[in-house]
Amino acid sequence: MILILKNGATDDQIDHVIQKVESMGFQTHLSRGTFRTIIGMIGDESLTTEQQLQSIPGVHQVIPVLPPYKLASREAHPESSVIDVSGVKIGGGNLAMIAGPCSVEDRDRMMRIGESVVKSGANLFRGGAYKPRTSPYAFQGLGEAGLKILREVGDAFGVPVVTEITDPRNVELVAEYSDMLQVGARNMQNFVLLTEVGKSERPVLLKRGMAATIQDLLMSAEYVLSQGNPNVVLCERGIKSFDPSTRNLYDVAAVPVVQGLTHLPIIVDPSHATGRPDLIPPCALAGLAAGADGVHIEVHDCPEEAKSDGAQALLPEQYNEIVEKMAAMAELLGKTIS
Amino acid sequence: MILILKNGATDDQIDHVIQKVESMGFQTHLSRGTFRTIIGMIGDESLTTEQQLQSIPGVHQVIPVLPPYKLASREAHPESSVIDVSGVKIGGGNLAMIAGPCSVEDRDRMMRIGESVVKSGANLFRGGAYKPRTSPYAFQGLGEAGLKILREVGDAFGVPVVTEITDPRNVELVAEYSDMLQVGARNMQNFVLLTEVGKSERPVLLKRGMAATIQDLLMSAEYVLSQGNPNVVLCERGIKSFDPSTRNLYDVAAVPVVQGLTHLPIIVDPSHATGRPDLIPPCALAGLAAGADGVHIEVHDCPEEAKSDGAQALLPEQYNEIVEKMAAMAELLGKTIS
Amino acid sequence: MILILKNGATDDQIDHVIQKVESMGFQTHLSRGTFRTIIGMIGDESLTTEQQLQSIPGVHQVIPVLPPYKLASREAHPESSVIDVSGVKIGGGNLAMIAGPCSVEDRDRMMRIGESVVKSGANLFRGGAYKPRTSPYAFQGLGEAGLKILREVGDAFGVPVVTEITDPRNVELVAEYSDMLQVGARNMQNFVLLTEVGKSERPVLLKRGMAATIQDLLMSAEYVLSQGNPNVVLCERGIKSFDPSTRNLYDVAAVPVVQGLTHLPIIVDPSHATGRPDLIPPCALAGLAAGADGVHIEVHDCPEEAKSDGAQALLPEQYNEIVEKMAAMAELLGKTIS
Amino acid sequence: MILILKNGATDDQIDHVIQKVESMGFQTHLSRGTFRTIIGMIGDESLTTEQQLQSIPGVHQVIPVLPPYKLASREAHPESSVIDVSGVKIGGGNLAMIAGPCSVEDRDRMMRIGESVVKSGANLFRGGAYKPRTSPYAFQGLGEAGLKILREVGDAFGVPVVTEITDPRNVELVAEYSDMLQVGARNMQNFVLLTEVGKSERPVLLKRGMAATIQDLLMSAEYVLSQGNPNVVLCERGIKSFDPSTRNLYDVAAVPVVQGLTHLPIIVDPSHATGRPDLIPPCALAGLAAGADGVHIEVHDCPEEAKSDGAQALLPEQYNEIVEKMAAMAELLGKTIS
Repeated sequence: MILILKNGATDDQIDHVIQKVESMGFQTHLSRGTFRTIIGMIGDESLTTEQQLQSIPGVHQVIPVLPPYKLASREAHPESSVIDVSGVKIGGGNLAMIAGPCSVEDRDRMMRIGESVVKSGANLFRGGAYKPRTSPYAFQGLGEAGLKILREVGDAFGVPVVTEITDPRNVELVAEYSDMLQVGARNMQNFVLLTEVGKSERPVLLKRGMAATIQDLLMSAEYVLSQGNPNVVLCERGIKSFDPSTRNLYDVAAVPVVQGLTHLPIIVDPSHATGRPDLIPPCALAGLAAGADGVHIEVHDCPEEAKSDGAQALLPEQYNEIVEKMAAMAELLGKTIS
Repeated sequence: MILILKNGATDDQIDHVIQKVESMGFQTHLSRGTFRTIIGMIGDESLTTEQQLQSIPGVHQVIPVLPPYKLASREAHPESSVIDVSGVKIGGGNLAMIAGPCSVEDRDRMMRIGESVVKSGANLFRGGAYKPRTSPYAFQGLGEAGLKILREVGDAFGVPVVTEITDPRNVELVAEYSDMLQVGARNMQNFVLLTEVGKSERPVLLKRGMAATIQDLLMSAEYVLSQGNPNVVLCERGIKSFDPSTRNLYDVAAVPVVQGLTHLPIIVDPSHATGRPDLIPPCALAGLAAGADGVHIEVHDCPEEAKSDGAQALLPEQYNEIVEKMAAMAELLGKTIS
Repeated sequence: MILILKNGATDDQIDHVIQKVESMGFQTHLSRGTFRTIIGMIGDESLTTEQQLQSIPGVHQVIPVLPPYKLASREAHPESSVIDVSGVKIGGGNLAMIAGPCSVEDRDRMMRIGESVVKSGANLFRGGAYKPRTSPYAFQGLGEAGLKILREVGDAFGVPVVTEITDPRNVELVAEYSDMLQVGARNMQNFVLLTEVGKSERPVLLKRGMAATIQDLLMSAEYVLSQGNPNVVLCERGIKSFDPSTRNLYDVAAVPVVQGLTHLPIIVDPSHATGRPDLIPPCALAGLAAGADGVHIEVHDCPEEAKSDGAQALLPEQYNEIVEKMAAMAELLGKTIS
Repeated sequence: MILILKNGATDDQIDHVIQKVESMGFQTHLSRGTFRTIIGMIGDESLTTEQQLQSIPGVHQVIPVLPPYKLASREAHPESSVIDVSGVKIGGGNLAMIAGPCSVEDRDRMMRIGESVVKSGANLFRGGAYKPRTSPYAFQGLGEAGLKILREVGDAFGVPVVTEITDPRNVELVAEYSDMLQVGARNMQNFVLLTEVGKSERPVLLKRGMAATIQDLLMSAEYVLSQGNPNVVLCERGIKSFDPSTRNLYDVAAVPVVQGLTHLPIIVDPSHATGRPDLIPPCALAGLAAGADGVHIEVHDCPEEAKSDGAQALLPEQYNEIVEKMAAMAELLGKTIS
């Protein structure tokens, strides 16, 4: 870290800062400028935190020079990770094509939607059995019955399945029925849940929170990695902004930013990012063009009957059409759909 | 709700919308304007959702006319609620003065800080035993040992204590040692946790998430209320914004906005809102002047040794000084500190 | 418009609202729901404003049903406009490839950069002679001398030129030397300037302001159109957000949103949107994939010597490389570069 | 400035950075850490810019250590400035009480409103004759006729007047009729306009742009100061955010932040910040409590007939009531209303 001292920091303050920092196990390097005194700290940054250093009297600003996410950082692990979800590869040129309804609903409908999206080219089926709903009065998901249906669809059409986990007490149960555990945007900083999925052997789909910086997202990935689970796929799904035109603001630049900082794959979710079916196709293509390692799209065969989020789903025939375009673009970009 | 149909909606679409809405149990009221057709829905809005209506072909916009938080709304409960936390009243003219360190640390320090803030005028002591930290490598709190120290401090100086709950499996344990359960900003939409604290008998301090609209905050309060726990105190603690001058953006207007929409009390937390000790005093006074039902301030006697968030804490003597000013302002505003 | 009255609006208030609205020249349509009274207004919405209606006692919410930008709206003009900039077509499947340095600098450098980008495939050359700089002490542009150099480069390599206009007193001068007038993000709501460029015959490149909603952008376009200048090209160049990873937040979904609302073309500017050269190529491709009608990229042959914004420019060889990729993608998408 | 070099910067790159920086006139101070090399630059920071330094190959991050606003900074001018507007003092403990309608309308109404607000305690009368309106079809102000009415009202009741300037060609005209020139939020980075008002002798009321950081605001003030006009009063009036509850987000913490960074006074405008009359009184008091040097409130005697922004105005009797409360709070805070 680098400490920039306050204008007019006294010699006593400077001495105290140096002594304090050296007592933490760092070597220091003092530089007095015309206007500011700077102290370089040489040593293991994990021995302290920005906040602690900020609290030392006389310190104006603390500049970290290493990313605080060690396991997730590309500096530590230069080669892109390829995550294997029961045979489907994500990252390193392999695209995840995740599709399915927001919520798991009745078995017949799920079989119909599953058959359709797999035929179109999806390689992972999704559906929520435990739904984090803004309203306590809204449909909260079918629970274990939903997990069973989801598993059945995956088995019937030969694709792995991914579903959301919301309760640290349910990790084992959900992992039993599914191939990949999704941590939703609202739980991205639910560290208790991250710690539990980090102990699971299932790959994790970690969605970016609506107020999360990219560093926040990578710190949450670090929680999972630090528990021993190296299989994390990140997902950009829109952040908060001031324009009501779209439900969230689709941060497509996050894809190359993340890829520069971490070896973990990152996919995009234009359904949640925009909340509007007409915007899903252009935003899906934009995500691929920006370099995303996959695309997550909600599909429902009768949105007006969907138990949740119907308004942001594509119809199966619309999904079929966009997959064709995505496949053509993948070819142009030299990417593979496993 | 009111449905505004798309420009050029066909008669078939209009008929389908009406039939669909009536099948949900609503009466409808059709109005054809020069440019748009509007359908008023008369009936119980909880029978459907905006999203479901939005999914019906031909619907352009859905306008809800009632707040979706029924128990929390002031329409349903016009009189301001007064929440009693082991004898300390919050709301309806009674101010909560919550103070203490970010984390519970060693017993002697806690006793020292506790004695000081109570002497200054705090009526609730705070400290975290389970800390939601952005980094998995940061201090995560003392756990149950911390809860015991917190209880001891509260008992020693005769004030109730409030502490954060992060794990739905811990509600009973935390409730045993503390008088009020805090749900932090990052867990504001952890619906599993909200449901569990809703089953507790302890009052809840619910902090606004960094990306939460005021409606989101009230919906989260509704989760707790709908489980049978009516004792919720809301807390404004800053939301995300683009200016790095302060850690978060202190939304002081949220205080009167919330008070217009709900009967629940709302306090402010200038420590987390600004992240800068020099801004805590003016922002604490601004919160009171805007009508807040209390002020939450972090206090530590040696910020550079604090195990978390030292940089945003006041020193005990600074807290003493600001309490004097807050007391004078409370008198001007006709508020009471119980 | 639709007026939703306040809960508990009295009969006197309802009568007053109706009388007031009818006095403005509207017919009204009253609908009393279980909880709310709604008044539909039938007539020409331009006779009043949301704010005026909002001020009538008893009115809770005003819902406009028509876009307030009449000339710019796609409802009024369903076919996509193709803007002709001295022979280069933009919109309706024709891509603008705008490139050049941030500021016009010395003649030799400009000739070198111009030659290179035109050879790579740029069809419009850009460079600022009047620079809106955050600091009064920064380089403010070469003024008319810069305009002359810009013109010379355009003529030498046979491409039209675009340059920024910042002063309403300079419109004629700038129009004399350039083929297209750029209104920058910070001037997007400088209505005096918009009115003046609206009186010019030159096409206008209107950049989205950093705090502008899409509706704000279209209202600013309406200013230009309403003065008689129909040739407006919009430009997404990033809006404010909370994540410091990129200079602004690149709102790629704005491209299809805008194209749904207006017949005017929209291009993207990944240089200003991200502020990082490594992000320009992926974000340029993402913009095209989302359907943009062109891409604006800053190019400089020695960024460390650039008089402004060097840090967000591509080198000429990098520009050459990304144009190749953009051309391949244009072909895939069925777009033409004129 | 401090340059942090990229991880793995080569010796050649380091040498080049040093040579480049020294060629700009700086001394350098090299520090090689375990992970990063740091170069301190000693000398006059105005010789270069962050962007230029950022463009040098091998540079990872540029950390400025001095504020780029020299004349506005408190470091340069520790004592708070008191601005004199035709006898009314603002700053240094003196409060501006600015009130009046959004737009200047007919003379009789203006006289009525002016008489009322001055009687209530306003010491500056406001009203717009040139209105920056989002829509080209909205009322644009009475122009010079409006300026005359404004002047007449000020003279009749013995208070100075402030009005908005939107066109650099109008500065002399507006300055002839008014005591203070307002630069509105949408023109905060209209540098041509700032330069012109900087040449005027009239004090300037500079409103914060909706996407402006506090540093942006101070840089805009610097534009005015650097032209020789030292009389700038800043105004917080809300910034963009994601919550539609209020028109803008009232950043009350900006008041003490600004006061720490500059000697210029800062007032608050709760009318524009919130857009809701019911929120003006609590937010006005919050602004004063946070330390603001004055309060700007819109007042209209018949909001439903106001030609602009009626929905955010107080009635004269409401203004009278809030002035009483503000006066009591001013006394508590030791402030004076001149």
